[in-house]
Amino acid sequence: MSNAQELADGVLAGDVRKASRLMRLIDDQQPVATEALKLLFPKTGRAWVIGITGSPGAGKSTLTDRLITAFRARGKTVGVIAVDPTSPFTGGAILGDRIRMQGHATDGGVFIRSLATRGNLGGLSRATGDCLRVMDAMGRDVILVETVGVGQDEIDIAQLAHTTLVVLVPGMGDDIQAIKAGILEVADVFVVNKADLDGADRMVRELRANLELRHAIKAPPLDHDAHHRMVRAKAEGKPVEPAPAGPPEWEPPIQKVIAAKGNGMDELMAAIDRHQQFLIDTGEKAKREQTRAMTQFLTLLRDRLLRAGLDRLERERGKLTDVAARIAERQADPYVLADELARTMS
Amino acid sequence: MSNAQELADGVLAGDVRKASRLMRLIDDQQPVATEALKLLFPKTGRAWVIGITGSPGAGKSTLTDRLITAFRARGKTVGVIAVDPTSPFTGGAILGDRIRMQGHATDGGVFIRSLATRGNLGGLSRATGDCLRVMDAMGRDVILVETVGVGQDEIDIAQLAHTTLVVLVPGMGDDIQAIKAGILEVADVFVVNKADLDGADRMVRELRANLELRHAIKAPPLDHDAHHRMVRAKAEGKPVEPAPAGPPEWEPPIQKVIAAKGNGMDELMAAIDRHQQFLIDTGEKAKREQTRAMTQFLTLLRDRLLRAGLDRLERERGKLTDVAARIAERQADPYVLADELARTMS
Repeated sequence: MSNAQELADGVLAGDVRKASRLMRLIDDQQPVATEALKLLFPKTGRAWVIGITGSPGAGKSTLTDRLITAFRARGKTVGVIAVDPTSPFTGGAILGDRIRMQGHATDGGVFIRSLATRGNLGGLSRATGDCLRVMDAMGRDVILVETVGVGQDEIDIAQLAHTTLVVLVPGMGDDIQAIKAGILEVADVFVVNKADLDGADRMVRELRANLELRHAIKAPPLDHDAHHRMVRAKAEGKPVEPAPAGPPEWEPPIQKVIAAKGNGMDELMAAIDRHQQFLIDTGEKAKREQTRAMTQFLTLLRDRLLRAGLDRLERERGKLTDVAARIAERQADPYVLADELARTMS
Repeated sequence: MSNAQELADGVLAGDVRKASRLMRLIDDQQPVATEALKLLFPKTGRAWVIGITGSPGAGKSTLTDRLITAFRARGKTVGVIAVDPTSPFTGGAILGDRIRMQGHATDGGVFIRSLATRGNLGGLSRATGDCLRVMDAMGRDVILVETVGVGQDEIDIAQLAHTTLVVLVPGMGDDIQAIKAGILEVADVFVVNKADLDGADRMVRELRANLELRHAIKAPPLDHDAHHRMVRAKAEGKPVEPAPAGPPEWEPPIQKVIAAKGNGMDELMAAIDRHQQFLIDTGEKAKREQTRAMTQFLTLLRDRLLRAGLDRLERERGKLTDVAARIAERQADPYVLADELARTMS
């Protein structure tokens, strides 16, 4: 395991090449990566993680670029994880390239990494969590996680952040309203980008009305345990109680910006600062980190158990290919097979 | 288990109330639902499943509505599963309601069901697969699965279909190109909707150029086993070989429609028919069903194993809440815990 130790030492010393190498090994699911992550784990938990998510076409890359500049101007080191919904065909990394090209390529204080959706079945949020951990251990002050798209994966990823920015843009298509519904709850700060477009003020008003409505029908505050019961229920796909919102209350501000011109960035940075201070002052930071730890642990556990389960299945039942063929021909029952394997753990 | 038997008998007799009840029980993860699904499983595999996916705002609901009308005109019974990225807050079912309101509410030959993203960690694709199975067992000739959004979950869901329509619309925003990359490979038929908008012809040209490029760089054909190795590699998040494409070749047609007016629907239906005939004639249908069986089995297995693992964890280590708190404080190591649990299966 000297290799893992060497990688971990390099990362802790801030070595960008070693960090890049470890991230590639994580991507390839090499055992040495897990060993290195184990070594790094106790040294993590210092970075402030900012998620940037929202509708397609909302200008998230441009906003990310502006945020990098703003944090660099404060002397902070920045890590960026750009999560791309690319394909094995195109081979990925559109977002990261786009940000890189915007002029931070030669700044050693900015470390950009793209993650493509190479695995399915939720592998992306696990990989994102692992890369966050590496950048955190490297000593990056701020880590920006940008996700394109709006699926459940992206929402899971948004929940890895301390502060989540939901970026919207006026005048998008029809089902955007439906999509927004899924990300409204994860927003700590709403960013209405391209605020010089028609409909920006209407969008702000609609968001505000929606927040007030949500406030009005909010369930009584839940205690900490109840919150965790909810997280577990969600992980297991069980019904979740509506709108769990522990005290104290944070009212997500709505910030208009024109990222392409840099307009509104000072106010946006101030909003991010206020949210950070709020989380620290109220003890919400620790709670969020517990929730994040649980989400990441569940993802990791799910991965490991599936792999161990498949190994056992293939030992006992033959190749997965053949098992799948028997299932497709209705000669084997997937429910029975799954239950049998699950019982081996009891 | 008489309850499960009663549900299964009802579904097999085409009873809509029993089917609705079973789907609710599936949603709530009731054990009786699993028992009923086991009973139904041998009777499934008859429906033709059509996935409808694509960019937000592309008019997928309107297109689904037109497809329902077209299949009903042929005397086919239709099931519709509308997968909604809704939230616990808004409470769901936007798509299904929209389709229902378009005039099929009183037609007994149309059965519409909305699925919201209530669980996370991939629970949605499992629920979609289970509901597909119920509609299939009911004897629906055609099942339309409509997904909003473009995340990995949606791509997984698209892969449950025999024929996948990817719906695009001219003149959408910026990262749409990035998103399309993720769904280009799953398209059996491209639908360029709102074809009267500016840029429709350019979009068709771009798609065609992209398909030609893909064709030009395509890897040599893989055999059947290689294809399954790829599916398993993807499930485990391991690196996937580029562009696996077994013989024979299907060239996805690009069909312009104006769904709101019904223009181009006859041609689209003909393209769907050609694809169905192609899959049957070439034996690709059986291969797709094996791949689908594997995907569904892996999803099911992952769910069951996680739940069994959490039960064991809580028995041995105390409440998940407390374990997560210890992880957040760096007093417990998630990698060690996950490995320990995985070993119990070996």
